[in-house]
Amino acid sequence: MVAPIAIFDSGVGGLTVLRAIREALPTLPTVYLGDTARVPYGTRSPATVRRYALNNARFLLEAVQPRMLVVACNTASAVALPDLQQALEIPVLGVIEPGARVADEVSVSRKVAVAGTRGTIASGAYQRALAALDPAIEFFGRPCPLFVPLAEEGWQDDPIAREVADRYLSDLAGLGVDTLVLGCTHYPLLAPAIAEAVGPTVRLVDSAHAVAAEVKTALGEIGSRGSEESTEHRCFVTDLPDAFGEVARRFLGGEPPAPELVDVPPTA
Amino acid sequence: MVAPIAIFDSGVGGLTVLRAIREALPTLPTVYLGDTARVPYGTRSPATVRRYALNNARFLLEAVQPRMLVVACNTASAVALPDLQQALEIPVLGVIEPGARVADEVSVSRKVAVAGTRGTIASGAYQRALAALDPAIEFFGRPCPLFVPLAEEGWQDDPIAREVADRYLSDLAGLGVDTLVLGCTHYPLLAPAIAEAVGPTVRLVDSAHAVAAEVKTALGEIGSRGSEESTEHRCFVTDLPDAFGEVARRFLGGEPPAPELVDVPPTA
Repeated sequence: MVAPIAIFDSGVGGLTVLRAIREALPTLPTVYLGDTARVPYGTRSPATVRRYALNNARFLLEAVQPRMLVVACNTASAVALPDLQQALEIPVLGVIEPGARVADEVSVSRKVAVAGTRGTIASGAYQRALAALDPAIEFFGRPCPLFVPLAEEGWQDDPIAREVADRYLSDLAGLGVDTLVLGCTHYPLLAPAIAEAVGPTVRLVDSAHAVAAEVKTALGEIGSRGSEESTEHRCFVTDLPDAFGEVARRFLGGEPPAPELVDVPPTA
Repeated sequence: MVAPIAIFDSGVGGLTVLRAIREALPTLPTVYLGDTARVPYGTRSPATVRRYALNNARFLLEAVQPRMLVVACNTASAVALPDLQQALEIPVLGVIEPGARVADEVSVSRKVAVAGTRGTIASGAYQRALAALDPAIEFFGRPCPLFVPLAEEGWQDDPIAREVADRYLSDLAGLGVDTLVLGCTHYPLLAPAIAEAVGPTVRLVDSAHAVAAEVKTALGEIGSRGSEESTEHRCFVTDLPDAFGEVARRFLGGEPPAPELVDVPPTA
């Protein structure tokens, strides 16, 4: 039995990260936890998000003994990653640094924008991650609160989505920005509308693919091969398993494992 | 000292109800609790919402000894009102029945639509409330998930709000509907866009004013007069008091009381 990779998110959005990881590592078992009882994290205080993140991590460690934990939620990555890395004895990856690293690699103008929830942008995490890679990078943070409900509503390739993306992001190219990080797991679903809003001179960086590549690299060192037979995928949710299916299919790009309702107890 | 009316909501939206109550009863002290740590309720299971509602009610009873409790949240009113009325020894009013009663009074075509969150519409509470008043009423439930983020973003009198309202609601007049209940505390902020989408033959019913009128009637029997001097207003939130101000001002239509951060403990 190969130990799985565990991925948690505040809800359904992290399935875009799960999808990228499964594409990069098709024979590895995975376990996904969507904290649908406490979604969204993007509007909560850092202390609250840190508490939820530790609850989720401890639950997953106990339940499935994973070999690695991926924090698919940008808000939790932004405020809870150091706490998780300190508290757990397995490797813990977030989605902020991988996205920032790709942006640093591809930006020529050194003007990088990040679109995310209010919580992610206000945390300053992307700004810090980019400054750590190159202090000369000029940062543009753009909270885009309408994107999550648009993606969940399924209004993706849609005039309203294009108009909203335009409102939030159409000025970036004129400011000299050439790279836009999609700093929220929901945003890849709106990539076509976002690409149209920013125009052809701005490259989109999808954190999901960036983190999948880093998971593959990290596992290369500790053994990335499962076996076809052992590839099992599980999915836990903390509320409303029945409502998970339709939206989950769209985010995962395929049939999700049947969601199991679990209770994530508070920990000290 | 006059005992206050206590009002709770999942977040900031219930301030539209507080506003209507304060307009109807300007000398009565009020206490508002926004459960911002656990917002939104509209996407949670009925069992979870019932638990949160009981937590909030018990907290308020203990903290301020109110004379009456108003559940400003449509989702909580839809699934938790009987539990609250059974558990508490003070009068408990929700927002569903008052809105349904006004719709029943004003509808001529007997075709009534309700716009609300997915949770409120899926609960069937408005449908049941209307059927109890007149089984001949034809009911049209319309989940409008984009309306809450639009109202919170402040995009109210806005082409995007009008386009979204159009998408959700523009067919109602053609179906013979003449009355639309705004079945979510956020929606009154979008009333101009909604009115434009449904056209002049559809009358909007604002639950906030409906519930304020019923509070006034109910208090008439148990003493609705405070005194100018004793009129105190308090506001509790369970997370992020600093983020409450700007949006709260827009919802309340004036300066809210300084929000006090409180912990609403789970109860058995």
